Amino acid sequence: MIPLYTPECRQCKSCLSKKTNLCTAIRTTQGKGVMPDGTSRFSYKGKTIYHYMGCSTFSNYTVLPEIAVAKIREDAPFDKSFYCGCGMTTGVGAVVITAKVTPGSNVVVFGLGGIGLNVIQGARMVGANKIVGVDTNDSKEDWGRRFRMTHFVNPTKVQGDLVQHLVSLTDGGADYTFDCTGNTNVMRQALEACHRGWGVSVVIGVAEAGKEIATRPFQLVTGRVWKGTAFGGARGRTDTPKFVDWYMNGKIQIDPMITHTLKLEEINKGFDLMHEGKSIRSVVVY
Amino acid sequence: MIPLYTPECRQCKSCLSKKTNLCTAIRTTQGKGVMPDGTSRFSYKGKTIYHYMGCSTFSNYTVLPEIAVAKIREDAPFDKSFYCGCGMTTGVGAVVITAKVTPGSNVVVFGLGGIGLNVIQGARMVGANKIVGVDTNDSKEDWGRRFRMTHFVNPTKVQGDLVQHLVSLTDGGADYTFDCTGNTNVMRQALEACHRGWGVSVVIGVAEAGKEIATRPFQLVTGRVWKGTAFGGARGRTDTPKFVDWYMNGKIQIDPMITHTLKLEEINKGFDLMHEGKSIRSVVVY
Repeated sequence: MIPLYTPECRQCKSCLSKKTNLCTAIRTTQGKGVMPDGTSRFSYKGKTIYHYMGCSTFSNYTVLPEIAVAKIREDAPFDKSFYCGCGMTTGVGAVVITAKVTPGSNVVVFGLGGIGLNVIQGARMVGANKIVGVDTNDSKEDWGRRFRMTHFVNPTKVQGDLVQHLVSLTDGGADYTFDCTGNTNVMRQALEACHRGWGVSVVIGVAEAGKEIATRPFQLVTGRVWKGTAFGGARGRTDTPKFVDWYMNGKIQIDPMITHTLKLEEINKGFDLMHEGKSIRSVVVY
Repeated sequence: MIPLYTPECRQCKSCLSKKTNLCTAIRTTQGKGVMPDGTSRFSYKGKTIYHYMGCSTFSNYTVLPEIAVAKIREDAPFDKSFYCGCGMTTGVGAVVITAKVTPGSNVVVFGLGGIGLNVIQGARMVGANKIVGVDTNDSKEDWGRRFRMTHFVNPTKVQGDLVQHLVSLTDGGADYTFDCTGNTNVMRQALEACHRGWGVSVVIGVAEAGKEIATRPFQLVTGRVWKGTAFGGARGRTDTPKFVDWYMNGKIQIDPMITHTLKLEEINKGFDLMHEGKSIRSVVVY
């Protein structure tokens, strides 16, 4: 079983549209930190503790609505396949479901954390040609190449304009770009590094509150497309098991991304490692 | 024959991609106002006059590169079907080719000039459900309804927020919106009036130099798509004849849009009428 922060009720307008994974069935109660019946199932010393992102997985045990749980194959090891409920599906799904990257495409990925590395894996899986990783942290180059990134660009070491550099590197611009940074300036660069006529830029990163993206509309009128994705466009219950299959079949790797194994008491150390750029993904063992 | 401001060489990377109509074959020379061989074919009292937008149609006779001419059926009246080389194809093509509006969709059109009215016609042709026109000029309501617009909104008369008003009117947001104003604030409203999860907003209008569009990236991450179109995404030589057929078959009207017939000497009067919002399309007779 994999907990889903976006459920799939298969009955709301969004689920029935078949055009989005953003099920709205329990959005209001989830936003309030409670179950669909309006109650919380957690307490500590008699005081109510609220559910977190619908999943409350910073816990040994949790309670979820039935529509927010994906059933996966029984031979999948939980301490690895849990990642299909988060960054793996977000990154690979952005490539496969949201952007629908085609074989032979040139792809640029901004930000090589867990999401960006999974975008690289997705791009490789579908037969992309050039897979360019962009990160200000040089230590990410080895990480990217491990998953078949073909080119690495550190923006702080590029002479001149980064967008022009990337456009040259991809023969006129990338067919697909992905922002995995949450930085709105980078989102703009990602759009503008797209090929005239057909380049598609996908925003995956979550920006700071109040920040806005901007560009000249000419970028769109000349054929670039700006879109975004949440959970890689994957419908939780329907698609997550497929991503688990891809892991189990060796199409997508997860094991090398599990950089740290911690105890639940060390959870804040996990956040520290992430902020310091030292981890890709930590896993908690009980 | 219809002159094309965007040619179709069928040999450049863009044409061969089949993903865009933005042929690049003669972009450099056209931008300089000359023919592909670097010369101009116009002069006045011995002084070179440059070609304009590749077509130079403010003239009794013109010379065009072969790849910038569409051959159309011989029974099509030229003083009407010329519009298939301009606003009719731009508006209808934005619906049919760029956005691919599906039957039963709700559509919002910002700006009811010639382009906006043709977007309305395109939306009707493909079986859209609600077709909402937005314009600050009340006299445009009759124009819109003539082409089967179903709702009219004058933003200056809406109490409260225009976007919220449009979202309510379209049951959660439009499936497709079109900016036909060139105003970057309107382009933002058009995006944000789209339905969460799948709404697509298409920029058709050309903005003032230096103006930028902006929004919170959350709008994209929650499923809205921002794109643009030039000449409705139509490939000049391949698609323009189809638009002429639609006119000749009565699927799309042109005749009621020809509001003024002028002589070439009166061409500046044509621009005045347009700026005053009094014309949809003027035609010059020789």
